[in-house]
Amino acid sequence: MTDITTLSGPVPPGGTIGILGGGQLGRMLALAAARLGFKTHIYSDQANPCAFQVADAHTSARYDDQSALEKFARACDAITMEFENIPVATVNFLSALRPVNPNGRALAITQDRLEEKNFVRAQGLRTPHFAAVSSPADIVHALEVTGSPAVLKTRRMGYDGKGQAKVATAAEAADAFARFHGAPCILESFVPFAFEASIVAARAWNGDFAAYDPSENLHEHHILRRTAVPSRLNDAQADAAKAYADIIARGLEYVGVLAVELFVTEDWVMLVNEIAPRVHNSGHWTLDACMVSQFEQHIRAVAGWPLGDPRRHSDAVMENIIGEEANDWRRLSAHGGALHLYGKSPALSGRKMGHITRLSPMSGR
Amino acid sequence: MTDITTLSGPVPPGGTIGILGGGQLGRMLALAAARLGFKTHIYSDQANPCAFQVADAHTSARYDDQSALEKFARACDAITMEFENIPVATVNFLSALRPVNPNGRALAITQDRLEEKNFVRAQGLRTPHFAAVSSPADIVHALEVTGSPAVLKTRRMGYDGKGQAKVATAAEAADAFARFHGAPCILESFVPFAFEASIVAARAWNGDFAAYDPSENLHEHHILRRTAVPSRLNDAQADAAKAYADIIARGLEYVGVLAVELFVTEDWVMLVNEIAPRVHNSGHWTLDACMVSQFEQHIRAVAGWPLGDPRRHSDAVMENIIGEEANDWRRLSAHGGALHLYGKSPALSGRKMGHITRLSPMSGR
Repeated sequence: MTDITTLSGPVPPGGTIGILGGGQLGRMLALAAARLGFKTHIYSDQANPCAFQVADAHTSARYDDQSALEKFARACDAITMEFENIPVATVNFLSALRPVNPNGRALAITQDRLEEKNFVRAQGLRTPHFAAVSSPADIVHALEVTGSPAVLKTRRMGYDGKGQAKVATAAEAADAFARFHGAPCILESFVPFAFEASIVAARAWNGDFAAYDPSENLHEHHILRRTAVPSRLNDAQADAAKAYADIIARGLEYVGVLAVELFVTEDWVMLVNEIAPRVHNSGHWTLDACMVSQFEQHIRAVAGWPLGDPRRHSDAVMENIIGEEANDWRRLSAHGGALHLYGKSPALSGRKMGHITRLSPMSGR
Repeated sequence: MTDITTLSGPVPPGGTIGILGGGQLGRMLALAAARLGFKTHIYSDQANPCAFQVADAHTSARYDDQSALEKFARACDAITMEFENIPVATVNFLSALRPVNPNGRALAITQDRLEEKNFVRAQGLRTPHFAAVSSPADIVHALEVTGSPAVLKTRRMGYDGKGQAKVATAAEAADAFARFHGAPCILESFVPFAFEASIVAARAWNGDFAAYDPSENLHEHHILRRTAVPSRLNDAQADAAKAYADIIARGLEYVGVLAVELFVTEDWVMLVNEIAPRVHNSGHWTLDACMVSQFEQHIRAVAGWPLGDPRRHSDAVMENIIGEEANDWRRLSAHGGALHLYGKSPALSGRKMGHITRLSPMSGR
């Protein structure tokens, strides 16, 4: 820990970056921080998460343990997080002690699907039609807004398809709402998109912005299976996607890397589906196809450093290694691509265990 | 630690790679091992070397502390090292407990400049002229073998120009020999080379061999300043350089990454100058210009995994950040290349603090 940076200015090499969350994203953030000469301190509510293996220091405690949080903050020069469901109260508590990014407001907005969509609309960007569903009485009106079919989603804590149900009628929506135990929901139009694209980008302390080329994503069973760069977006669309991310990052007064997921419709309209206020699975290809990965870019931003060059030197296809696929490590080790395994065990169904990226020479955007 | 691999076969992800030595090479080996899902355990005779910051476990003890060595070995599935001056007795002791690579014989040969040159000659490869200088009485004969000028070097423990002196006469050689306190020496012809090339390559358990493209190296004050790929070697010469490395690796029954430094003379003769039985500063460019870096390649080899693809996707120029140059980290952070800092302090004169690699599109070999 270096005292000078608790006041202002960039964290010097040798300083400590605190990371809330100890999963694979925290692990890859820690590896990227180490490359720049930083130490890392991982804080997790898990006993022995995989990021602990590569960090200089770690704390295992609840996210509302103020004594542990204070000790953690005092050991760090700047603090960030690997996932968006860190309690906003935790972030606000830490922010009184050290620079924390992304900021509490950005988290609060992106933790709630309704707040998030209202925010996106307020920036002048398009989303699928949506309406709040706070009680069964809201369902008929909401379906008039969205049309049918639609997707009912809990406003908070959903990921990888959890807390989501496709519904065609008010009765189906009421059933789904009951299955979600009456948690506040949002009903969204079901978009028969041609493909999903995402844009991973970074914003620095001084407002500088740097976006990676948009990727095209394929999901299976609601989990990301494959990301390819370049996407099918043409140059103008790719530039527009980058501009969306810039507008969103500015609106959130954001510092760090974020991802914006876009539905691209058959008639090439781009709708904002979701914002992830963190490094993102659809940006893992940047580890191997760019000089500066999304992980290093995020560390640079939260440490108050200048952003790195987001250009890629290669085309890339990233595939996730999910659940028991990781047991096939002998075959994966001979695959020929760039292999990343996250040090997690056991290889439970649906768990993201690693990824592998194959590069090829640049074919254009 | 996984019991199964103490017997035979590749170390599975989640297994522990032991690394002797805790400097920047050990640090970058640990980061590469983490990428493949391995844990690392660093063993160093220093109190708090920079590799400790990124390792799952570490031991600080002398290299002849058998109790610490045994405990370390039992916590690891496979063991390797980051530098060549680990005592051979240490490696032999550990080898009785766990697979250790490179092997003790390869180390013994490459720890002694005379043994090394005799070995290289025995493989049918060319070196500068050389002769042993064990006492002042050997000097006149040695100078007849080498011609003048020549370079007197201690046979053991020299690096970055330490323990070396350029001499023109028997009197100068005698002076240098006295300055080296009568340590056993080798006298070598001074080669007015056009440039120095090096070849970084890996050999696997099963004899598979993979070489990176040769690089061209520029030294300043006996410390590597800059490495560029491609080198000025033409395709046939580059292939020959790779073949040299293959011959040497086979002769040493080597497993892991090694580097062979070559003097390329004005008339394009390639002489073997030195073998480094480890990852090498002249291979740092592979971190950014290849899918599989020299560090991952070494971990793959010593873990019994298949070697990765050594092809590069870009041209690269790597520059070392030496001593107080690291204090200029604000400028370096905005440099635009791929920056690597090693978490070392203080920034003492001549100390390797980091490196930076600039990539450009492939221009050919």
